[in-house]
Amino acid sequence: MAGNTFGQAFRITTFGESHGGAVGVVIDGVTPGLEISESEIQKEMDRRKPGQSSVTTPRQEEDKISIMAGIFAGKATGTPLFIVLYNKDARPEAYDSIKNLFRPGHADITYHEKYGIRDYRGSGRASGRETAARVAAGTVARKMLEQKGVKVLAYTLEAAGYKCKTFDENEIENNLVRACDPEAAALMTKRIEELAEIGDSCGGIIECRISGVKSGLGEPVFDKLDADIGKAMLSLGAVKGIEFGKGFDCSSMLGSEHNDWMDKNGFMTNNAGGILGGISTGQEIVFRIAVKPTSSISVPQKTVNIKGEETEIVTKGRHDPCICPRIVPVVEAMTYIVLADHYKRQAAMLG
Amino acid sequence: MAGNTFGQAFRITTFGESHGGAVGVVIDGVTPGLEISESEIQKEMDRRKPGQSSVTTPRQEEDKISIMAGIFAGKATGTPLFIVLYNKDARPEAYDSIKNLFRPGHADITYHEKYGIRDYRGSGRASGRETAARVAAGTVARKMLEQKGVKVLAYTLEAAGYKCKTFDENEIENNLVRACDPEAAALMTKRIEELAEIGDSCGGIIECRISGVKSGLGEPVFDKLDADIGKAMLSLGAVKGIEFGKGFDCSSMLGSEHNDWMDKNGFMTNNAGGILGGISTGQEIVFRIAVKPTSSISVPQKTVNIKGEETEIVTKGRHDPCICPRIVPVVEAMTYIVLADHYKRQAAMLG
Amino acid sequence: MAGNTFGQAFRITTFGESHGGAVGVVIDGVTPGLEISESEIQKEMDRRKPGQSSVTTPRQEEDKISIMAGIFAGKATGTPLFIVLYNKDARPEAYDSIKNLFRPGHADITYHEKYGIRDYRGSGRASGRETAARVAAGTVARKMLEQKGVKVLAYTLEAAGYKCKTFDENEIENNLVRACDPEAAALMTKRIEELAEIGDSCGGIIECRISGVKSGLGEPVFDKLDADIGKAMLSLGAVKGIEFGKGFDCSSMLGSEHNDWMDKNGFMTNNAGGILGGISTGQEIVFRIAVKPTSSISVPQKTVNIKGEETEIVTKGRHDPCICPRIVPVVEAMTYIVLADHYKRQAAMLG
Amino acid sequence: MAGNTFGQAFRITTFGESHGGAVGVVIDGVTPGLEISESEIQKEMDRRKPGQSSVTTPRQEEDKISIMAGIFAGKATGTPLFIVLYNKDARPEAYDSIKNLFRPGHADITYHEKYGIRDYRGSGRASGRETAARVAAGTVARKMLEQKGVKVLAYTLEAAGYKCKTFDENEIENNLVRACDPEAAALMTKRIEELAEIGDSCGGIIECRISGVKSGLGEPVFDKLDADIGKAMLSLGAVKGIEFGKGFDCSSMLGSEHNDWMDKNGFMTNNAGGILGGISTGQEIVFRIAVKPTSSISVPQKTVNIKGEETEIVTKGRHDPCICPRIVPVVEAMTYIVLADHYKRQAAMLG
Repeated sequence: MAGNTFGQAFRITTFGESHGGAVGVVIDGVTPGLEISESEIQKEMDRRKPGQSSVTTPRQEEDKISIMAGIFAGKATGTPLFIVLYNKDARPEAYDSIKNLFRPGHADITYHEKYGIRDYRGSGRASGRETAARVAAGTVARKMLEQKGVKVLAYTLEAAGYKCKTFDENEIENNLVRACDPEAAALMTKRIEELAEIGDSCGGIIECRISGVKSGLGEPVFDKLDADIGKAMLSLGAVKGIEFGKGFDCSSMLGSEHNDWMDKNGFMTNNAGGILGGISTGQEIVFRIAVKPTSSISVPQKTVNIKGEETEIVTKGRHDPCICPRIVPVVEAMTYIVLADHYKRQAAMLG
Repeated sequence: MAGNTFGQAFRITTFGESHGGAVGVVIDGVTPGLEISESEIQKEMDRRKPGQSSVTTPRQEEDKISIMAGIFAGKATGTPLFIVLYNKDARPEAYDSIKNLFRPGHADITYHEKYGIRDYRGSGRASGRETAARVAAGTVARKMLEQKGVKVLAYTLEAAGYKCKTFDENEIENNLVRACDPEAAALMTKRIEELAEIGDSCGGIIECRISGVKSGLGEPVFDKLDADIGKAMLSLGAVKGIEFGKGFDCSSMLGSEHNDWMDKNGFMTNNAGGILGGISTGQEIVFRIAVKPTSSISVPQKTVNIKGEETEIVTKGRHDPCICPRIVPVVEAMTYIVLADHYKRQAAMLG
Repeated sequence: MAGNTFGQAFRITTFGESHGGAVGVVIDGVTPGLEISESEIQKEMDRRKPGQSSVTTPRQEEDKISIMAGIFAGKATGTPLFIVLYNKDARPEAYDSIKNLFRPGHADITYHEKYGIRDYRGSGRASGRETAARVAAGTVARKMLEQKGVKVLAYTLEAAGYKCKTFDENEIENNLVRACDPEAAALMTKRIEELAEIGDSCGGIIECRISGVKSGLGEPVFDKLDADIGKAMLSLGAVKGIEFGKGFDCSSMLGSEHNDWMDKNGFMTNNAGGILGGISTGQEIVFRIAVKPTSSISVPQKTVNIKGEETEIVTKGRHDPCICPRIVPVVEAMTYIVLADHYKRQAAMLG
Repeated sequence: MAGNTFGQAFRITTFGESHGGAVGVVIDGVTPGLEISESEIQKEMDRRKPGQSSVTTPRQEEDKISIMAGIFAGKATGTPLFIVLYNKDARPEAYDSIKNLFRPGHADITYHEKYGIRDYRGSGRASGRETAARVAAGTVARKMLEQKGVKVLAYTLEAAGYKCKTFDENEIENNLVRACDPEAAALMTKRIEELAEIGDSCGGIIECRISGVKSGLGEPVFDKLDADIGKAMLSLGAVKGIEFGKGFDCSSMLGSEHNDWMDKNGFMTNNAGGILGGISTGQEIVFRIAVKPTSSISVPQKTVNIKGEETEIVTKGRHDPCICPRIVPVVEAMTYIVLADHYKRQAAMLG
């Protein structure tokens, strides 16, 4: 009911505020016998962690994970896997100046109105730091799915007003913005650095391609595979939209153009994005998400305080001028989590 | 696990194939004492039913509902409300010609691969007829929410290549496509009629505006209000994308442009679409969905049969050349269902 | 949340009042391809239905079921199976005299206090008629499990003050009380007929033995197999207790007596009742439930009306003097449902 | 699905093995604003912890808890509360001698058969240590319910063959076995000390009385209040049975004896144990559970090893000769958790 659990057969429950004692995740439904090590998870954590480059926040956090349950002699036992990250460098006093203000674009005001009480230190539970737990869990799901030949690949398709024109998978980890086109990446990077300089931020579009998913995954009618991926993505604070295959462009297409025909080699096109009637076709699954510009900016903004009085706010924190490169591993993680859940649900259906 | 249940505190479970005995819904969590009548629900059913006009399928189905449990002397008792629609004019033999073919754009092939068995009569469970049960349940949710001042309004924003340029709520039910702009509606209608003539179809965009929702609804971190609305919409077979507020356009905006400032009168803009951090702000909630062109067309198409042999298919059924006008009440229904669930979840949180 | 759904991977949602339009069940998670017919289900329904003999209520209800969804050409399709029983002979006016009274032992007063509104016709949702839907669903689960070699057998062990001293499976369906000892059955029957004569009722103990369950079923720590069976049984209105294996007698045993030793042929005893740590051992699973005397009696009783005024009540209905024989098929049904769920959950865990 | 989550509106997810890094619990659905401190929780932990007296295991564990999320300035924020206990004195090497043996009465063999892999150190996840997390969560539920006037009181009613003949609430914490009758307590204690001396163990019966619960709690038909309490109790490893009110004795009563009559002052008796039709009546709720003799004994026992070869086992650990006194706070904790969940579910129903 309270929204901190995701999935059914592969189920994660997360907790933690950005400046509390720790963030972490309980993962229920890990296949027993799965080999998993802290270093494998740490590698993915490092892709998400702050302080990576000039286009991310300069904050330095280790994001060091520990597996504290559910594992024995390097293998998952089938009992809940528990992974924790302690908040080592929390500096709650840095937030004293904003404790009675509602930062524009943030969940400050909505948490205040929902709960009547708010942990104002670094956005509390609404902080992006919460996604660290998702990445940890996603890496476990990834290990399970790699054995089935599934591969999820996310990357920046657009950012700071520039759009990738080529696609080279090998380039993605070679540039600071995790874009699939090195030329666009250079333009994006330059523009984001400029925005960082003036304390502003920008948004972008992340594309995700999933290969190796067998046909038949997804549960009609409400838990369609695209519905569950959509929920997973929209549960990320910065995401404002998602589309599959041709997505919004399908609104101006004809049925005769959009329908994917089949011949003896399978589907001839993939306008649907690999999902029909909520069930995977066995083709590549393709979706894109809209990422809003980071809400934390240091440009002066109008807002109100907790009493409703008008004021101006200038946040001084060291924030991400564009969250795209850091959201890429989170998108991959949540996708792996949805897929692990649906693989197990399919097994239950047949079991 | 098997995907036919939606919601937690207000929970619907649906069943039924398009040419089986019946479709229906069990609604658990109806507030006891709620006055509800079959005629109120029937009125909404009639907005979704086929055979309404030249831009919908000419099939004539009554879609007559019966409430068979959970009600006593005109009031909900708090026990499950059960609503059923019998399939009176089912003509399964009409589908003999396609029983071994996979229609492009349909879930024929994915159901076949998922279950190893398929009810090929009129798409079976994957038929749009399934949404009749959602509309029935949505009307019950609507009754509950109207008492709280909530109003959901969906309408066609784009279709057949035309886009509404004005917004007049009163026009929506005055034109065949349920568009908010009468001039665009006329153009859409004409084009859809032409497409119907040649056996083709088109897509569109539906916009939905929700007013009267109190601030504080939505459950961090996974069951954000936008995440749950997103899942609800993407669980509709024809929907390929969703965006909130500025949506995909936010990807090319700056933080200083996108952040909604506040003054003593509240929010000065609504780029976020009424949701911050997954929790309602109290503003109007705005989202748009991409609707694909109807898959059922009578243009000849390439496909394969159940043995994988290539063939051509020409479906002769009487289908909707554009599903937009009929999906509008379904979008409203699912939105009401999500909101009813979250109102009750908020009550539980405080209870 | 509202309690009308049971199970996860094999999940049933029931609805219906005793004198509303219908009772029924949506079954989600039926293995696709399962052959199932109305007549097979009807056979089990007939074991539960009223009017069977001198020790059950003389009311005549057909309890005729219809499968209206989820089936195609005699096989389950994997979509929700929907089974309905219409309430043909409902005579709500028969209950006018008690509509403002709270019958002792009944849920009249608690429904009134919970919901503030009550369908007083024949106990409404609290009627034993609700279990008809469980038996229908249980028969589907049974079909699935018979293929795995599982067999559930329930029978009356004690009733009306008499206890079975022998066990003969073949006798169970040969006597009116479904007892496993024909001599005890004769004594029970005579005493129950006497009680019926004077308008009183009696309770009993049902024992259930499950054979053929593989080892490894049950989910630590909360969804232990015995915990889920226990919940299933205690969700039956007349059940006031449950015990596994030696049950309450274990409280006066020593560890050295109670522990089941193992040798190369397996377990040497079965004091635990076939479950260790909530997981099946592969032995016979054994439990017993306490069934209270039927609350509906025609002896004059003290009670209050809806205004809290004292009065005397004499109910005239034709009720079961002992519910034991009719609860036997319900116990079997709920057991099959729990097992079907756990078989599928085990498949998900490994999937 | 995997069974480590309990409850809906007040929901706990636990993790941890007895000799892994930690055990803990994520609590979702804590009412925001609730004041809660580590010391309050610690106090309850100390009632459950080992090493309390001559009738419990002499192992010394601190069971020190830390709240690491969901709290701010001493108050719950509405986000998940996370409580952890580190396993400080784990000595896994002590279990080397039994790693290939299945201890009688333990879940060793069933975990092995379920998962194909087993953390053999101190029973792993099947250890009673898992209940520490339940007690921590239960204390939070207790804080919420004390504000509503609810009080749960559990105590030893029978143990080691002795039965309490008087009831004095104030005596319970004054004797080592937490019995309600000081004379019986003395006899129980003496006998348990004797059994400890010879390496054997004994069982008992715990009774639980709940006062102050408002009428109307419990959700028909599956989530009846007694069904959910029953599941909670049967999810404890040592519990083999549960009964409400007159319990198993009702099987030999007449309806005219068992029905609780009402007069203007309310119910005249409480044979039902405070629950009718699964819904609380507002009376005291009374149930009893059967606790098996501790499986860990040092008497030589026959068993098999992992290869199925016969052997004799003599476990040397320092175990509880009778778990009754230590299970009392666990019973109270689980009861508070069920009630907190149902209070919130009732709020949702009306919300």
